[in-house]
Amino acid sequence: MAHSLPYLLLNKEKCHENIQRMVEKAKRNNVKLRPHFKTHQSIEIARWYKEYGINLCTVSSFQMAEYFASDGWDDITVAFPVSIYDYEIVNNLSKTVKLNIIFSSYKNLIAFKREINHKVGVYIELDCGYNRSGVSPDNTREIALMVNQISQNDLYQFKGFLTHLGQTYSAKSTKEVEGLHRKTLTLLTQLKLFWKESFPEIEISYGDTPSCSISDDFWGLDEIRPGNFVFYDIMQSSIGSCSNDNIALALISPVIDVYPDRGEALIKGGAVHLSKDFILLDDQTKSFGAICPFSENTWGEPYKGFWLKSISQEHGIIASNDFEQVNTLKPGQLVVILPVHSCLTVDSMGEFFLSDGTCIETMRKRN
Amino acid sequence: MAHSLPYLLLNKEKCHENIQRMVEKAKRNNVKLRPHFKTHQSIEIARWYKEYGINLCTVSSFQMAEYFASDGWDDITVAFPVSIYDYEIVNNLSKTVKLNIIFSSYKNLIAFKREINHKVGVYIELDCGYNRSGVSPDNTREIALMVNQISQNDLYQFKGFLTHLGQTYSAKSTKEVEGLHRKTLTLLTQLKLFWKESFPEIEISYGDTPSCSISDDFWGLDEIRPGNFVFYDIMQSSIGSCSNDNIALALISPVIDVYPDRGEALIKGGAVHLSKDFILLDDQTKSFGAICPFSENTWGEPYKGFWLKSISQEHGIIASNDFEQVNTLKPGQLVVILPVHSCLTVDSMGEFFLSDGTCIETMRKRN
Repeated sequence: MAHSLPYLLLNKEKCHENIQRMVEKAKRNNVKLRPHFKTHQSIEIARWYKEYGINLCTVSSFQMAEYFASDGWDDITVAFPVSIYDYEIVNNLSKTVKLNIIFSSYKNLIAFKREINHKVGVYIELDCGYNRSGVSPDNTREIALMVNQISQNDLYQFKGFLTHLGQTYSAKSTKEVEGLHRKTLTLLTQLKLFWKESFPEIEISYGDTPSCSISDDFWGLDEIRPGNFVFYDIMQSSIGSCSNDNIALALISPVIDVYPDRGEALIKGGAVHLSKDFILLDDQTKSFGAICPFSENTWGEPYKGFWLKSISQEHGIIASNDFEQVNTLKPGQLVVILPVHSCLTVDSMGEFFLSDGTCIETMRKRN
Repeated sequence: MAHSLPYLLLNKEKCHENIQRMVEKAKRNNVKLRPHFKTHQSIEIARWYKEYGINLCTVSSFQMAEYFASDGWDDITVAFPVSIYDYEIVNNLSKTVKLNIIFSSYKNLIAFKREINHKVGVYIELDCGYNRSGVSPDNTREIALMVNQISQNDLYQFKGFLTHLGQTYSAKSTKEVEGLHRKTLTLLTQLKLFWKESFPEIEISYGDTPSCSISDDFWGLDEIRPGNFVFYDIMQSSIGSCSNDNIALALISPVIDVYPDRGEALIKGGAVHLSKDFILLDDQTKSFGAICPFSENTWGEPYKGFWLKSISQEHGIIASNDFEQVNTLKPGQLVVILPVHSCLTVDSMGEFFLSDGTCIETMRKRN
């Protein structure tokens, strides 16, 4: 055995195709691509982006910014609102890196009260309906207060507005994603036109894999920040951001037992490997992953009527509508689990492997 | 800052109390305590058990068995069904350790076809209604086939029957747990009486934190294997296995922003810190954690009307029934999140801290 089981296998070719597709889409639409690196958390994958001319990135923590800066990334947006605890690391990073930080409200902004030592780019985070973090684009008073405060600080360079359209993850169709996306573009361009008079250089930075994968209209945007598309997963294929065939990452798990009476099989593969996101299938059944056959270091189309029904810490239960079919599985057989949420699966595992056995470590690699 | 945020804080005193309480209960009921170490995955915590005379342990993988064997644990049950991929590690471990393995069906047993080199203890895993892994106690034919196969192998020492009553985790009351527990005891003692004639030494090994915490009747059992009780969590307090005051582990997270209009606050603390289990509150709202005030390196009772409503990769949203109350939170303030499932939270974080700043590393520590 080269690997202990289960392990994560990355299809390098599919991953490159996913990167290339998004790079071309960004070029075609004249927007910068600043991919979110929290999905792969890996210097190696970040280098693949460089092959396509990408030299901007997004991360979700200052520790992650440090990690990528250590490999030469020097224009980084930390797309998580800054707090007083980040003061030292902001000053360290901004010595050598073009660092962009975000403020998610006036309260958040004024709480970051200590004087910084070097110039940083500053975005105001907008909440365009996801209700997670940021100011509503309608809240012109709070935005004005924030812009005013930012422009009074010589070390803050006001870069514009940033948003993450996370509600697209709950969309049931590509049409719904398109609808959310277009509505948001209208809001954002209105806001940009308003502030452009005083700040001609401001930009709109916009993220999320569903919108950026599904839409081909980025009118008014300056930059997109999708992340998940590098690997995709079955949450994305169920939304319509990709096909199952675009999914580049999968967990290779051994079948441990088969229970013909229940039409179920036990695999080694649980929450510590996949994390615990799920999608709802058409009949509202929960699925924690799709199951595919494994051969010659790659995988085929998902089995029809098989799905990962439940997971606990290390156990996974495959269920099937077709008892005869599940009985064809054998203890010791390796199967492939397409994850529901590849970002969390990568974080859980901490490393993944290419088909030639090369190990790619993430910044949160395990002992 | 001593720690980067968020970090896991362990209350050593509560943890010792939890260990001591279970040790005393096992003694009182004349059953062996073989605690499950997948909850803490830490040599340091395992040593605390030794202070109470515990020298048996349960683990969920052979890698975990190796890890604890490296610190002198020499009587270990791997409570996950064995597979052909474990062949080498079984042989390595059984050289020096009294190793117990489990078979979860006749299929699983015969799939482990290679000859082993050293004596191992063997349990037949029973499925007493959880429908995860194991043979039904009613399936006398399959059990007889397995016993027969096991007894034909000189290196297999038939130890008896092992079960995990996982369905207690879905129980809504201590009464329901008691009911499931008593029903299972009856099944298990019948089975033991039947097989005791041929194998006088066989034992019943029984696990799960809710049953072992709630019940005080272990009649017919030889060994209990609870794990979670060492830390507990709000899933356990909601079942009734413990009070919130027994929970020994919590995530210390900074408030990043407060949104008075929504009655919500943003913390740094998400799926990569807590994993994604949730409980349903009385009104069927999902909760990913309880929120407590933090001061002097410890925490108070959970805020009433506050809960962790949703988490994404690194963001957590605190919701409140009381808008005025949530507005008392301030960006930069540290709050305490009592986790829903401490085992998965520990696995996600990979390390935890005592109040004196001592770092306790797990076997899956992060870089």
